[in-house]
Amino acid sequence: MPQNSLVNLVNYEDATPEVKEIFDDIMETRQSEYVNHIWRALASHPPLLKQFWTQMKEVMIKPSRLDPLTKELIYLAVSITNSCTYCINSHTASARKKGLDDEMLGELNAIVALANAGNRLTEGYQIPVDEMFQSEMSSDWKGK
Amino acid sequence: MPQNSLVNLVNYEDATPEVKEIFDDIMETRQSEYVNHIWRALASHPPLLKQFWTQMKEVMIKPSRLDPLTKELIYLAVSITNSCTYCINSHTASARKKGLDDEMLGELNAIVALANAGNRLTEGYQIPVDEMFQSEMSSDWKGK
Amino acid sequence: MPQNSLVNLVNYEDATPEVKEIFDDIMETRQSEYVNHIWRALASHPPLLKQFWTQMKEVMIKPSRLDPLTKELIYLAVSITNSCTYCINSHTASARKKGLDDEMLGELNAIVALANAGNRLTEGYQIPVDEMFQSEMSSDWKGK
Amino acid sequence: MPQNSLVNLVNYEDATPEVKEIFDDIMETRQSEYVNHIWRALASHPPLLKQFWTQMKEVMIKPSRLDPLTKELIYLAVSITNSCTYCINSHTASARKKGLDDEMLGELNAIVALANAGNRLTEGYQIPVDEMFQSEMSSDWKGK
Amino acid sequence: MPQNSLVNLVNYEDATPEVKEIFDDIMETRQSEYVNHIWRALASHPPLLKQFWTQMKEVMIKPSRLDPLTKELIYLAVSITNSCTYCINSHTASARKKGLDDEMLGELNAIVALANAGNRLTEGYQIPVDEMFQSEMSSDWKGK
Amino acid sequence: MPQNSLVNLVNYEDATPEVKEIFDDIMETRQSEYVNHIWRALASHPPLLKQFWTQMKEVMIKPSRLDPLTKELIYLAVSITNSCTYCINSHTASARKKGLDDEMLGELNAIVALANAGNRLTEGYQIPVDEMFQSEMSSDWKGK
Repeated sequence: MPQNSLVNLVNYEDATPEVKEIFDDIMETRQSEYVNHIWRALASHPPLLKQFWTQMKEVMIKPSRLDPLTKELIYLAVSITNSCTYCINSHTASARKKGLDDEMLGELNAIVALANAGNRLTEGYQIPVDEMFQSEMSSDWKGK
Repeated sequence: MPQNSLVNLVNYEDATPEVKEIFDDIMETRQSEYVNHIWRALASHPPLLKQFWTQMKEVMIKPSRLDPLTKELIYLAVSITNSCTYCINSHTASARKKGLDDEMLGELNAIVALANAGNRLTEGYQIPVDEMFQSEMSSDWKGK
Repeated sequence: MPQNSLVNLVNYEDATPEVKEIFDDIMETRQSEYVNHIWRALASHPPLLKQFWTQMKEVMIKPSRLDPLTKELIYLAVSITNSCTYCINSHTASARKKGLDDEMLGELNAIVALANAGNRLTEGYQIPVDEMFQSEMSSDWKGK
Repeated sequence: MPQNSLVNLVNYEDATPEVKEIFDDIMETRQSEYVNHIWRALASHPPLLKQFWTQMKEVMIKPSRLDPLTKELIYLAVSITNSCTYCINSHTASARKKGLDDEMLGELNAIVALANAGNRLTEGYQIPVDEMFQSEMSSDWKGK
Repeated sequence: MPQNSLVNLVNYEDATPEVKEIFDDIMETRQSEYVNHIWRALASHPPLLKQFWTQMKEVMIKPSRLDPLTKELIYLAVSITNSCTYCINSHTASARKKGLDDEMLGELNAIVALANAGNRLTEGYQIPVDEMFQSEMSSDWKGK
Repeated sequence: MPQNSLVNLVNYEDATPEVKEIFDDIMETRQSEYVNHIWRALASHPPLLKQFWTQMKEVMIKPSRLDPLTKELIYLAVSITNSCTYCINSHTASARKKGLDDEMLGELNAIVALANAGNRLTEGYQIPVDEMFQSEMSSDWKGK
């Protein structure tokens, strides 16, 4: 018996035309007949479904300077740090499709663990930032 | 006047031979005469300095499957998510040395923001994990 | 089969008189015969049960400037940000009793997601606080 | 001397036409001649500026079921929980403009503190979710 | 120039009798003429000052099974994990008064760093809990 | 049916000699025939298994200034604050073996809850650090 979500997961048949259109876009963009749970839960408030899918396409799917696997690794690093079970599961699956294997996953986890450890050490000792790291200048709002 | 750390930042002259050896290794590994604050604070408890530097070399500096810039981006994504000021400053500096520019930094921040947003959406609705994401089997400790 | 807690959940029959009194107060305050798991777990250390219930009544139940639904939304926003499964489930239920529907839940989640995204952007870029936001003055301890 | 951000804060004069248009929209929407630091930092990567401002208008400014002050309190609760200095300063200022006073701020902080305490208690004891809180059913993707 | 808080720090002379009484209790309990910033900020909403001071005395100051230094180390471990600058500074000071030295601080930081690292590893790999760790049984609310 | 991890849990029979050696060391160090899930998952990337076990022995098991139970309480406080289910379960079990009982667990949870509450209050009001807490001086890198 699966754990329940706090809203009904909308299925395709019962969806409004507005929601169906987004479900169709998700399936076409991903070349898959399956729409995973997060999108069906967000469909309980269609404006939110639209906002988040638009962002996801813009940030994660549209070709850009960072390659697709690197983007997934960054997304995964955040999700691990936030202990987001659903996100870790779904984005590990996405990353595996883009080439992630156990060795790379091991390296990713080692870096995430090290970064979390290092973050606490600098907090624990309240390390002041080295001046050499502060290279950029703030400027006034209305120009010189 | 700089903010103070909670322990004295050890300088090279006053360091014990054990600490000097690690400071020397840091300077040689990084090809730099400068040892930044975190290492000087950790020197207040030499075993900790040794542990963390050993880990840093092993995980971040030793050549491996992930390239050096990707490693820095993962470290930075964690540090931003943890709001670690020192870490964000120092690892943005490291990443810039390895090729990060404002456009890539913008993309990184967009992904980190999106991941944090998505993480909360899945928590807020308590989305159950799709079965298709759970592909690996647990096995018994002593084999079949 | 439910997941187990790390302490025995105390039931009414086995409770000490001190604990029974608090259970009675919880049932009367909430007009319900049911005492949920958190209180029965805290009963494993009665002083903690008393402390937390006293706080809960004082902060969440006693009439005050903020209305009951707004208080629940604030509590829920924190719980989502902290990924607290139990708290998200129990306080979504409380909020629904006070009028929360799927549209408002959608708006709440959209704000929580946006805030988490925005929080990371300001951290990622290390934005300095605008002077105009710092309007209040610190004053000396013993007056002028 | 203000702390520096990790990118140059773009001022109006030096902005590209694309960025100027968004700065104009921010000033008009808020009826203010001042554009605060976060927007000027995001302008270092114009697509990110556009994404985040679009979201902010959609989620926080467009009239909806939750009133403007309630929205700010939710945003603030998240920012306090995330320890986001910039966000706490800027959104406390926004909330004060919408009616927040010291008493309401005190109540908000009391709820945020209590929720963070309660979140840890349920984690520390690993409290299983009460069945009565799990009221919604998951359904199959393609309908019955 | 010190950073400003978001409310006026109440000083002794301007305090209401209700607040003065708590300030007096703080000074007497701690055998000190100095009341630190947190209490003066909370005085902007007296019920919150009273709640938090009452809790602090009950949990941290009243003699109990855990000794005073151990309590401070636990409080500090939480504050480091939460990156709470004020709390790390004030509770490191409290812990030093109770016997903390640089070696113990080094060990504390090493454990906090390791725990944060380990927490991420178990999240990153989504490790299921070993059955042998789940020793306690849930029981029904109204007895057998 | 147990939840699955994202990598295969390596069992003793199928382990490489390198991994077997670490499994043997874990069993000998802990005087137990059982190796828990985290180590078997880390074995999917042997260098990570080696790193983390080496750290665990160095920081948590090697005799040092802090006693073994205090170390476990610090580890547990971090894990509760991070909501790490696996870690809370396994380290509560470890702490019970070292003497933790329900009363001490209640006190620990009360401190963790209070610290999380206090951390948010100081963030919510943006309390500036009292000068008297900043006692240590930073010094220059190359000595006087």
